[in-house]
Amino acid sequence: MQTFELSRLPVWKTLATCAKAMNRPENHLRRLLADQDRLQNFSLQTERLFFDFSRQRIDAQTLGHLLELAENRQLKTRFAQMVSGAIVNTTEHRAALHTAARRFDDDAITVDGQDIMSEIRSVREKIRTFTAKLHQGRITAADGRPFTHVVVVGIGGSYLGTEFVSTALAAYADKKIALHYLANVDIHNFGAIADTIDPVHTLWIVISKSYTTAETLANTAQIYAYLQDHRLDPAHHIVTVTAQGSPGDDPSNPVLAAFHMFDFIGGRYSVTSAVGGVPLSLYLGWHRFEALLKGAEAMDRHAAEAPPHANLPLIAALLSVWNHNFLGYPAQAVIPYASPLSKLAPHVQQLNMESNGKAVTARGERLDVTTGPIIFGEPGTNAQHSFFQLAHQGRPFPIDFIGVVNPQYTQYRNHSKGVTNHQELWANLIAQPMALALGQSDPDPARQFDGNRPSSTLILDDLTPESVGGLLAFYEARTVYEAFIWGINPFDQFGVQLGKTIAGDLRAQIAAKNNNAAAPFKTLDPVSRYYAEMLYREN
Amino acid sequence: MQTFELSRLPVWKTLATCAKAMNRPENHLRRLLADQDRLQNFSLQTERLFFDFSRQRIDAQTLGHLLELAENRQLKTRFAQMVSGAIVNTTEHRAALHTAARRFDDDAITVDGQDIMSEIRSVREKIRTFTAKLHQGRITAADGRPFTHVVVVGIGGSYLGTEFVSTALAAYADKKIALHYLANVDIHNFGAIADTIDPVHTLWIVISKSYTTAETLANTAQIYAYLQDHRLDPAHHIVTVTAQGSPGDDPSNPVLAAFHMFDFIGGRYSVTSAVGGVPLSLYLGWHRFEALLKGAEAMDRHAAEAPPHANLPLIAALLSVWNHNFLGYPAQAVIPYASPLSKLAPHVQQLNMESNGKAVTARGERLDVTTGPIIFGEPGTNAQHSFFQLAHQGRPFPIDFIGVVNPQYTQYRNHSKGVTNHQELWANLIAQPMALALGQSDPDPARQFDGNRPSSTLILDDLTPESVGGLLAFYEARTVYEAFIWGINPFDQFGVQLGKTIAGDLRAQIAAKNNNAAAPFKTLDPVSRYYAEMLYREN
Repeated sequence: MQTFELSRLPVWKTLATCAKAMNRPENHLRRLLADQDRLQNFSLQTERLFFDFSRQRIDAQTLGHLLELAENRQLKTRFAQMVSGAIVNTTEHRAALHTAARRFDDDAITVDGQDIMSEIRSVREKIRTFTAKLHQGRITAADGRPFTHVVVVGIGGSYLGTEFVSTALAAYADKKIALHYLANVDIHNFGAIADTIDPVHTLWIVISKSYTTAETLANTAQIYAYLQDHRLDPAHHIVTVTAQGSPGDDPSNPVLAAFHMFDFIGGRYSVTSAVGGVPLSLYLGWHRFEALLKGAEAMDRHAAEAPPHANLPLIAALLSVWNHNFLGYPAQAVIPYASPLSKLAPHVQQLNMESNGKAVTARGERLDVTTGPIIFGEPGTNAQHSFFQLAHQGRPFPIDFIGVVNPQYTQYRNHSKGVTNHQELWANLIAQPMALALGQSDPDPARQFDGNRPSSTLILDDLTPESVGGLLAFYEARTVYEAFIWGINPFDQFGVQLGKTIAGDLRAQIAAKNNNAAAPFKTLDPVSRYYAEMLYREN
Repeated sequence: MQTFELSRLPVWKTLATCAKAMNRPENHLRRLLADQDRLQNFSLQTERLFFDFSRQRIDAQTLGHLLELAENRQLKTRFAQMVSGAIVNTTEHRAALHTAARRFDDDAITVDGQDIMSEIRSVREKIRTFTAKLHQGRITAADGRPFTHVVVVGIGGSYLGTEFVSTALAAYADKKIALHYLANVDIHNFGAIADTIDPVHTLWIVISKSYTTAETLANTAQIYAYLQDHRLDPAHHIVTVTAQGSPGDDPSNPVLAAFHMFDFIGGRYSVTSAVGGVPLSLYLGWHRFEALLKGAEAMDRHAAEAPPHANLPLIAALLSVWNHNFLGYPAQAVIPYASPLSKLAPHVQQLNMESNGKAVTARGERLDVTTGPIIFGEPGTNAQHSFFQLAHQGRPFPIDFIGVVNPQYTQYRNHSKGVTNHQELWANLIAQPMALALGQSDPDPARQFDGNRPSSTLILDDLTPESVGGLLAFYEARTVYEAFIWGINPFDQFGVQLGKTIAGDLRAQIAAKNNNAAAPFKTLDPVSRYYAEMLYREN
């Protein structure tokens, strides 16, 4: 296998030298932050997002070299190719056009000689009219009453992004519809939902591009059995979001409505397609989903058009690489000081780790540096009472702090210790990055804080659909820019195949034993056989 | 500052040599797993938990040296001291007696010359009688109807453990009580709960040892204002769990009931005390909470009494240290193939990272090796569709796979591809550790799996309260054993102090400005001032 020696680029070597210098005691964040212009020089503002990287361990010189790296790796060019429909998913020979899902201009985008925007517009229109009819009572349950439960049936990219957005915007959910997620094949997931819903007034949205995802098919089979038990017609209770012509889009298997998804939008980038569009429009109303799209579109334009030195996701991607490859941090936390963003970390965890957890380049060469830090996180201040002990005194990791100026709830303004809850939250949001950066000396070793722990702070004006759309697109663009720096393909996921293959083989052997209890698990290795047999201890 | 040179122990050096050998290609997990007796030699069974470490990168020789390390670090002795009430939390001069909370024998445990078991028994009895009265309708809301909502008001250790258990056992919740968690000071958290509950039939359990936790006090102030708005009497709607004599245990501020917690049980170890006992007994019934305690008690006895080579949490702790310090993995994932265990990872994240994210020993020396890996996780198979791309092809991290033989839901047995959902789940649970361990060669670099990725597999027979209690105690004991290997104090958390201090200073300045809009943030550094002023942009 050939190796792509990213570390032999002159600018990479220069950056390695910068990192050595940055690790010297005199370059502690304490000193960097002593500069009164630090914030002004190391922060950026777009219409809806303020990005402060003044607490990252960089100086102007390093930033300059990182921008050289951006130039060398042709980041802007690659991003422009992506949004214009080039085959950037080279291993699967596909375009990657999640940005097209939220374009509202009249331009065409051509893939394989075909304008794909007309299809995208028609899917959007279909979502708009379907949800309007449902909200207006023109589509109802069999008893003429409205649907009150919507279950999103999908896993991974058909689940996490939508869950992030629906949680972020739950305060806007005024359609009297409860949203549930049936992702895991685990029967506990189905069982818990069945305990909660009202079958007659429940709509199931089955989401699978190929309609072959094992988990989603197994859950769909449970749903059909459940509907039959309740004498309900699948054609009135099931909606599909799937590729044109898939088994989920088969007229011989009628459903209430089928919405198309496209092979040029990967699961983890699909929230703004019909994957998120159908459930989010049902839950929040089409106009709010459209506002989410417009917020994402504005960030896409910024990501494509702003020059590198003023480009938020591009700079954020450079900082990821700087932290991971040069300063050696293996992980990164996402800590929103806003409970509605509680599902951002699981979403970014998938988005980033599935996109960039790779060891080979898009051209199939072994890469000589590591990619894909581990992403994790919980909302602040909760995280402060959980794992921040380690953040302050254990092995350091960079953090994205996220704050919101105007909360969704403004009616609770009781003061405690002279401040509102929101102000108390902000006091912590302001204090933590500074405590991590500065540290504090103490003669008692147990109370010693070394500081020099890096973080960025992102501030949203509010948690409206537009702002959440912008945040979503920011992390998508950052992920893609990181991949372009490393030269990897952020749109494939061959790493999940081997497990699927082995599980498929095991499934076949278990199915055979279900048919014939005497069937032995003879081809299995001893460990796997031990577990397969354990399953027949089941009561 | 003195340094404790753990790495200079002869056995540590021997283990470093073993790690070098283990990193040689011929010691790939493929070869280790070729041994037909591998599982038998590298697995352990207790009454309720099977622990398989056959897919860890160790051999018999390494295991022998790890057991020497256990001997050298006097792990069993220290654990015995802990459970018998010695002052093992040296920095705070306290015992650490979470194990006493679930002891049902008649023995005394003496701390500072006093038997603490009588107090523990009396708190348990008080929980039992209070919850029985409530469930029997002898304690009701003001209108004589039952309480239907219970809100647990507490953060960190007063929240995450209880959330883990209540989620794990939700299928048993038959008391017609919905449980909510008000942890974050973020007003979105309070607002979302206020949108959901029925104020007249809501009981609030305020949990804070000192009753000075900023978040909990701020939320309690909101609750009092909310009760006043609804003309409800706090004395009939609030229950406290707090230290004797704290402001939450003040007769001049009457509450429906006050339950005591003790300074010898730290927050993150407190699920089996009144902290978890009051909400879990209300939600599930006392007898189920008692069963949880008994499951934990059995694991405590195993952890204290089993010889090192047969001791599950002790061996698991040795493996953590082996993976972290010798093989160099900075993180560890917890992946339960059981949706009810979805909150195990956030709980263990706090338990482990807050306990062991330290850089100094219990004696105040700088430690010369790193401690405290980053813990994260999501349930399988969901995680397979999220970050497992990185697990298979990116930078490796060890994984705890967790499986359950008998699910809580047995009524949904529809087959898909010849297997039940539960069997499909198990096919994946069996396949993933093997795929990670063995890997697979492929001429296409994008489809190449290097393998050699370590994992353990833990199997529970079921998800009953007893089993969940055992799992809880397993992770507690593992955490403590890890700390004893490193020589650190897993019971303090001074790392959270600096942020609290700075936030307190900011709060005071914000409070001053609330009082007088002209008050400047003059003593703040420029970055903090910028954010403090941003807050006054709030609409």
